[in-house]
Formats: sequence, structure tokens, C-alpha cells
Amino acid sequence: MIDTPALVDQYCHGVLRTELGLGTFEAQLVRTEGPPAPGTTLFDTQTGFAVRRWCPPLLGLEPHCPPARYLARRRELGMTEAGRRLLRGSGITAYLVDTGLPDDLTGPAELGRAGDAEAHEIVRLEQLAEQVADTSGTVASFLANLAESVHGAAAHAVAFTSVAVSRHGPALTPEPPGPGQVRGAAGRWLAGRRAGDELSDPVLLCHLLWIAVASGLPLQLHAGLGAPGTRADRTDPVLLTDFVRATAGLGTDLVLLHGYPYHRHAAHLAGVFPHVYADCGAALVRTGARAATVLAEVLELAPFGKILFSSGARGLPELHVVGARLFREALGRVLGTWVAEGASSPADAQRVAGLIASGNAGRVYGLH
Amino acid sequence: MIDTPALVDQYCHGVLRTELGLGTFEAQLVRTEGPPAPGTTLFDTQTGFAVRRWCPPLLGLEPHCPPARYLARRRELGMTEAGRRLLRGSGITAYLVDTGLPDDLTGPAELGRAGDAEAHEIVRLEQLAEQVADTSGTVASFLANLAESVHGAAAHAVAFTSVAVSRHGPALTPEPPGPGQVRGAAGRWLAGRRAGDELSDPVLLCHLLWIAVASGLPLQLHAGLGAPGTRADRTDPVLLTDFVRATAGLGTDLVLLHGYPYHRHAAHLAGVFPHVYADCGAALVRTGARAATVLAEVLELAPFGKILFSSGARGLPELHVVGARLFREALGRVLGTWVAEGASSPADAQRVAGLIASGNAGRVYGLH
Amino acid sequence: MIDTPALVDQYCHGVLRTELGLGTFEAQLVRTEGPPAPGTTLFDTQTGFAVRRWCPPLLGLEPHCPPARYLARRRELGMTEAGRRLLRGSGITAYLVDTGLPDDLTGPAELGRAGDAEAHEIVRLEQLAEQVADTSGTVASFLANLAESVHGAAAHAVAFTSVAVSRHGPALTPEPPGPGQVRGAAGRWLAGRRAGDELSDPVLLCHLLWIAVASGLPLQLHAGLGAPGTRADRTDPVLLTDFVRATAGLGTDLVLLHGYPYHRHAAHLAGVFPHVYADCGAALVRTGARAATVLAEVLELAPFGKILFSSGARGLPELHVVGARLFREALGRVLGTWVAEGASSPADAQRVAGLIASGNAGRVYGLH
Repeated sequence: MIDTPALVDQYCHGVLRTELGLGTFEAQLVRTEGPPAPGTTLFDTQTGFAVRRWCPPLLGLEPHCPPARYLARRRELGMTEAGRRLLRGSGITAYLVDTGLPDDLTGPAELGRAGDAEAHEIVRLEQLAEQVADTSGTVASFLANLAESVHGAAAHAVAFTSVAVSRHGPALTPEPPGPGQVRGAAGRWLAGRRAGDELSDPVLLCHLLWIAVASGLPLQLHAGLGAPGTRADRTDPVLLTDFVRATAGLGTDLVLLHGYPYHRHAAHLAGVFPHVYADCGAALVRTGARAATVLAEVLELAPFGKILFSSGARGLPELHVVGARLFREALGRVLGTWVAEGASSPADAQRVAGLIASGNAGRVYGLH
Repeated sequence: MIDTPALVDQYCHGVLRTELGLGTFEAQLVRTEGPPAPGTTLFDTQTGFAVRRWCPPLLGLEPHCPPARYLARRRELGMTEAGRRLLRGSGITAYLVDTGLPDDLTGPAELGRAGDAEAHEIVRLEQLAEQVADTSGTVASFLANLAESVHGAAAHAVAFTSVAVSRHGPALTPEPPGPGQVRGAAGRWLAGRRAGDELSDPVLLCHLLWIAVASGLPLQLHAGLGAPGTRADRTDPVLLTDFVRATAGLGTDLVLLHGYPYHRHAAHLAGVFPHVYADCGAALVRTGARAATVLAEVLELAPFGKILFSSGARGLPELHVVGARLFREALGRVLGTWVAEGASSPADAQRVAGLIASGNAGRVYGLH
Repeated sequence: MIDTPALVDQYCHGVLRTELGLGTFEAQLVRTEGPPAPGTTLFDTQTGFAVRRWCPPLLGLEPHCPPARYLARRRELGMTEAGRRLLRGSGITAYLVDTGLPDDLTGPAELGRAGDAEAHEIVRLEQLAEQVADTSGTVASFLANLAESVHGAAAHAVAFTSVAVSRHGPALTPEPPGPGQVRGAAGRWLAGRRAGDELSDPVLLCHLLWIAVASGLPLQLHAGLGAPGTRADRTDPVLLTDFVRATAGLGTDLVLLHGYPYHRHAAHLAGVFPHVYADCGAALVRTGARAATVLAEVLELAPFGKILFSSGARGLPELHVVGARLFREALGRVLGTWVAEGASSPADAQRVAGLIASGNAGRVYGLH
């Protein structure tokens, strides 16, 4: 049996602080552009089925009990106690937490305490830039503050993360934009901007990526199917090949998050470029009963030392649980099959399991 | 055991009225751009193997008997009797029939009688427009007749279908074209047109889609690998994202047909947009022994309430049989595995089977 | 049990003539853009695991023994003897060898002798053109010599191969460029060229393809993930659809090499166009324990008479072994499953195995 005692969740968010009813819980399960179609429910998805499988037992219920019964039990225990039981039942021993969402979610320290685990911060570049813009009076001060903020964040965070790919995809130029171009773009953006506006200017997004690359901290890039509101065809990680090639040899690692349904492409980049790593977790929460197959597809081209686990969870501790349990079960099944079929020795399979579950993340993010 | 007593084939065509020899039968098995390569036969395909597996027993022969023997038995029974036995052996209880092909195929009523099943008409928008063009004298009358024809068809058909994506793919604009643009395009098309010419003007194709959207009837869009003569890369359904987003909230459902090899992308759209549904059947006829895997891939991201079965069959009743049998076996295998592995309760699996086999189609198309 | 006594490797290279240490061997295992990331090794890849599984027993060691032990044994036997044992243990009975790499690799005759197998030459068009350029003084003589060289090569080679797709991808025009265009491009290229420079002008690449098409010899096109240095998104074989359609009916077969991760797309083209064939081997060496699944994906749309085996091996005889063993095991497993599940008769499965292992290649390349 493949065993993975430690699990580093290399990309997740905190959890909501409010009690949830059936409808508000359902809305957090899967990210969509609108309410469920009439006559359908988002519980009838891979994520819904996985939550119903893995979470009720952690709160003392039968697997696959009706959602309403689960939600009633959750409210009975209270958000805090339910969250503690769920997070501590996930098997995750370290959380790397993207703190850059506007939602009121628990931060790394609070998530770590609830889950009795280590926790570290991931800084989201676009949100950092938006905060800097909110407090900078001129283009010159904006650009100076931006560089300083990224530099300052690098001192306490374990990684940067960016959604530039899903916001601009192929428009992302491989080269760092020149200073004049950046000043021009910053001027236009700041002039037209109201507080709270999202950063979507491609020149500034690119500039931000290159500042982050210069910091030396690992840079996580969202690719593949992520948030609604994007066009999936613009998030294929192979479209990043030129940027990836331009950043090779600079000493900064790139981590391709999500990937699915282009996870084979992300794995290819992780195989070809020494500084590229592939995430293999967030897609499992979306694909549920199919997790072992999706994981196996990542393991086709990505070297085993270049694959990292994450839950990608956001809002619900149930998603951290499901991410971790699906991953562990899938990893055990995939590697167990290799051993059974003679494709790997038992010792190698166990070693690879440790790399993907925590060893690679420990090395890349300098944990411990 | 997962049971699916009722099966709604949400997209198919009628069958040929002529007796077929080995060569003419082979030519109907798979759609290609030319005859089989020297030394090869189209019976050596997934579709060929699936026909040889499922159909001979319905005509009193052994599975996998030689094609020539099967064809001899088929002629012995006669086209009509063989067709009855095949269709009645398929397990399909309702056919939704695209009547917009030029071939001489049986219509919905005749197909329903032969198969002892319900039958409904799907109207193909491009063919409707071509018929209207054949009988309209001026641009103004063409456009007025077009609107009226679509409106009239909506009264008796259960859905519209369009091949605009495979004819134009990414060129499809997300916005309805303006009246002047439409008049200009209609004028140019009608001026250069001879009776029988295909509609391939992108403005008119788009105009037609938007008239159909306004009718409120479900709109089926061909995407993925469909007919030969198209470039597969232009049929990726994610290229439709802008059009899909533009039609959200208007009360009209979009059904993405075929999908394969982009079925995971179609499933993504069905997951993100409340008004989008994904077909999971036609690809199974093409992929045969791999049907369970292809179906499972659709079931990764598409909510279980958003998936519809079809055979996509055309010309040969054998293709209706193969579509239905492969689907049933694949669905039973996929959902049975979920139950065996604990990913679903038996009751949920049975409920999901019913949704995909007929429940979702009944709701979307308003059957009974 | 499915049996494949003869195995035609329709695309490979020769092997290195030098003794290899752990690091130089590792560098040949997988083609990358740089050395392994710190803390990782390329032995921790599917290819590494597959080599450790299949090769040690051929040199008298246990499967999965440590790489250092394997390399020590390899040096102990000496490159020549180790190569003989490996190649003769592969089960390959005929090698088709691309001789167009600059590396010092064994040629077809030497590879054939070492492996006790038939061997034939595949001529790489780009290298042929570069050699002609090195020895031609004027544009006119270059173009005349080029046509003559291709014609001459066609007399002794069994196929041409081209990397035009990975060098230019979608820029490849479907039509043969006109004589003036070709002369202009040749003039510019020759003027700016130093001896040894690669051919990367799209007009000349295209011209070369069309000369090769005119020769009637099968033309192998590299598509999908091939060499590093390319952008994977530009190598999707469906981007070749217009070129494929333009070459239909001319009597020249096109063979799509590699394909992965677009192998389903390559299989589609092989299904739709009579003159297109799909490779199913090289991807297996890269995907190792997943070989049966990847092969099964090719077998979805490609007619069984249109699929060819290759190892794609280069430099290491271990890669010929791994290609052949993975293929045989995968083919046996895929077809064995079909028989077990009733999707094929045993006789048909055995016949299909023979076609893919050697029959199709024998027919396409006119072997024997």
C-alpha cells in the first residue's frame, strides 16, 4: 500500500466565516456563471458526489447522506467546529494560502490553527498591484511602490501567484515590457481607474510577472480551466511556451496551476523545462470519481520530481478534504497499479508518492 | 445493476430506403473524404466492430460473423423487416430526428413506426434558409419569410440544429448582426446563388442562429468532429464561449452535439453556463470499445443534469442500435464502477442513469 | 493471448557509438531544454522507469535495479555487446531509420546487423536540402540539385520525413508555392546562409514537401510533441488539414508521427483521409506505464489498417527496447480487453494486432 503521511497543499484559499444553508453551500461547490439550470442541482456533479462521499463521516454521518441532512449537521456543530473536524480530517499537514481574493476568508494563520497544520502565504500579484494603485498618487510612485511591494512580499511569502494568463492568455508577451511602455500603460490605467478596479492591462500584467520573476520566489501561474469569465481556449499552458522559455535559467521556478483539460500540455512543459512544475491537485476536486485517471494523465510526461499536490480549495473546508482524499486515493491507485503491473518497484512507487505529496513542494518552496 | 429502461435519442437522422450491398453499406458506416485506402476496409474500425458485435444477433446471427454474411442476411429479410428488428432491438423509446439532410431518409413518423417509438422533428436551420432562398424573390421577402419559417417551425419541432460552427467556427460573431449587415449579406448571397447552393455566409449563419435563439426552442450546435470537409481545429466548442455568454439568460438552451475530441471542453461549458447542455452519445458510435472511457470523460465536468444521450445515427438502423447499446453498456459500466468504488450510492447512480438516458432530454425538449 | 511475432519499427534513429556514464545516459533518456532541475533526475520519468523495467534483464540484471548498477553492467559488457543484446531482445524485425540527424549514430545497415533485423533508410528532407545548399553555387543549381536529390533519394529510401510542421506549423501553406516565390526564397536563404545553417524558410520547407509528395514515396510528418525548441501548440496535426486535403488523391501516403498529446486528432485525420496514416509508437516511450491507454486513444478513430508502430528511438538501444516492449504489452492488453469484453472476436483481434505491428507498415512502405 502506498502511504502519504504528509501532504502539502501548495495552493488553496481560506474558508468562509459564515454559516451556510443548502443554497449558499451549493453555490460554493462549483464556480459557475449563474444559478443551476431549472430542474438541476450542483450537488449532481463530481464535486458534489465527492463531498457527499468524504465529508459526512468526518461529522459523524453516513457517506452519501442527503445534502440537507449534511448541512443540518454542519450547522448543529457550528461553522468553527465543523471546519476544525473537516480540516483535521483532510490529512493536510501544510497549507500554502493564496490571500488575494476579495472574499472574507480565513487567512493562513487561522486556517493553520483550525487544521492543526503549518500555513504559509502566497501573494497574488494582481491584487497587490490593485492595492498599490489604490494608495499611489502618481505613475512614478505607483511603479516604485509596486516594485517595493513585490520585493517586500517576497520576504514573507512562499510564492507569488498570477491570473495574468486567464486574463490575457496568448496576448502575454514573452519579453519584459520596456520602461517607457510600462509608464505609458500605468498612466493610462491609473487615469481611467476607480478604486477597486481589476488590473487587466496586458503590459502591466506582464511587467508584474517580470518583477516577480526577478524576486526569485516561485511563481504560480493559473492555467487551464479556472474561474468562470474566462475563455478556456486562451488558458492552454502551451500558449505560455515563449514566456516559459524567456524565463529559463533565471533561477525562478514556474508552477502551472490547474492545467485541466490541458494538464497533459502542462506536464509536457514540466518535462521539457527544468524550472517548470505542474500542479496535479485542483483538477481532481472537479473530476471526482475520475481523479485517478486525470492524475495518471499528468504523470505521463511530467517528471515525478516536478509534480505538486494542491486542493485549490476556496471557501468550504469540504473542498480541502475532498482535494486531499481524492488525491491520496488516486495516487495510491495509480502507483499501486504500476507496482502490480511491474512498471515500478514498490520502493520507487513509495518514493514517488512522497515526492508528489510533499517532498517536491518542500524543496520548491523551501519549507522546513 | 444500472438500469435504463427508457432511452431518448436526442439527435439522429432517418434510415435509407434502399437495399445495400457490402460496399454501399461500408460507405455508410463511417463518413470519410474518399474510399478506404487500398488494402483496408472501414469494417476495421470501432464502428465496424461495434456493428458486428451488436447487430447480427438481432437478425438471428452470431456476433462478429463476417460482414458479407451479415449483409446477405439483411437482404434476405429485406430492408424494411431488418430495419424494424434493428430499431426495435435498440432500446430507444423516443427519436428526435434532424430532417435537414438532402439524402432520401425516412422521416420522424416513419422512423417512429418502424422502431415502435415516439418521434419528433428537429429542424436544421441552414436547410430551412436554403429552402426559403429557393422560393423568395427579393431580399426583403427572403428575410421576412426566413423569420416566419423559423417561427413556424418552432411551433411543431422540438429543437433547432445548426452546423454554423463547423462551417465557420471561430468566425462566428458573438453579437447578432445588425439589420443593414444582414440585408447586405442576404443581397450578396441571393445574387450569387443557384438553387440548391449551401448557405455559408457567416453573417447569415449568425443571423439565423439569433432568430432561432429568439424562438426559445432548444438550439443544438454541431461541434467537435462532425462531417468531413471541416477543419477539426475550428470546431472546438470553447471557441463558442463568447456566443454562449451572449445567449445566457435569454431562456433558450444550447445543446453541444458530438464534442469529441473536445468533449471535455463541451462538458466544461455545460458546467459553467446554466443554459448549456452536452451530448454524450454520438462520439460513442465512433469510439466503440472505448465508449465507457469517452463517456466517463464527459462526466468529469458536466453536471449530471446537463448531459444528453444521442446516437447521431444516419442512414443505417445499425447505427441507432450501436449508439444505444454502446451508451447503455458504457453508462452501466461507468456508474457501476462508481458504486463499486464508493464514489456514489447505488440510488444516486441509478438516478443519474435515468437523467442521462431520458430524464434530462424529457425536461429540455418538453417531452411529455 | 495476442501475439505479434514480427515488429516493424517504422521510425527510429541509430544508436550512439560511445560508452556512456550515468549523466550522459540520463541526458539521452528524455529530450529537454536544460539539465534536470536541482534535486530531480530524469530517471524519475516514465521513460526512466520503463528502461529500468525492461532493459536490466536483457543484460542479466534484476528489473528496477539502480541506474548506476545498470550503467556499470552496460560498460562492463561494452557498448557494442550491450547494444546487440538489447536490440536483439527488442523483438523488432525491421528498422526504418531516419538518417538525417547531425549526431554520430549508427546507420541503417549497422543497426540492422546489431539487431539481426532488416533495415531501411528514411531520408530527412530538411537535412537533404541543407546538404544541397552546402554544395550548390547558385539559386538555379540549388533548386535543380534539390529536385534531383529528392528524386535520387526516392530510389533507395523507403520514405521521406519532414520536421516542417514543428518548424512552422500553421504557417505551412496548403498549396505548392509558385516558381517565382521559390526562387525568391531560395535566393534570400542562400545569400544569408552559412554552411550548416538549418532550413527554416517556410516557402522552401513547403516547396520541399511538395517535391517529396511528387515522388510518390510515403511522407512522414512530425507532429505533436517532438523535439524541444518547438511550441507544442503549433504541432497539432489538425492544423495540417488543408495540406492533407490538398495532397489527397495524388497517390502519396502521409504518415503522422508522434501525435501525442494530439494523437486523437491524428487518428481523426487517418480516419477521414484515405492517404493518411497514424503512428502509435513513439508516444508510448514517453508515457510508459500509461502506454495501453495512449494506444487505446489512437485506436478510437484511426481505422485499424491505418495505424503504424514506431519506437522513435534515438541514441540509446534501450529506447528501441522500451518502444517495442511497451507497444507489445499495450497492444496485447488493449486487444485482449476487447476480446474479454466481447467487443472483438479473438480472430479479429489477432488480425488487427498483426496489421498494427507489421502488416500495415509492410504494405505502406512496400517491404518484402
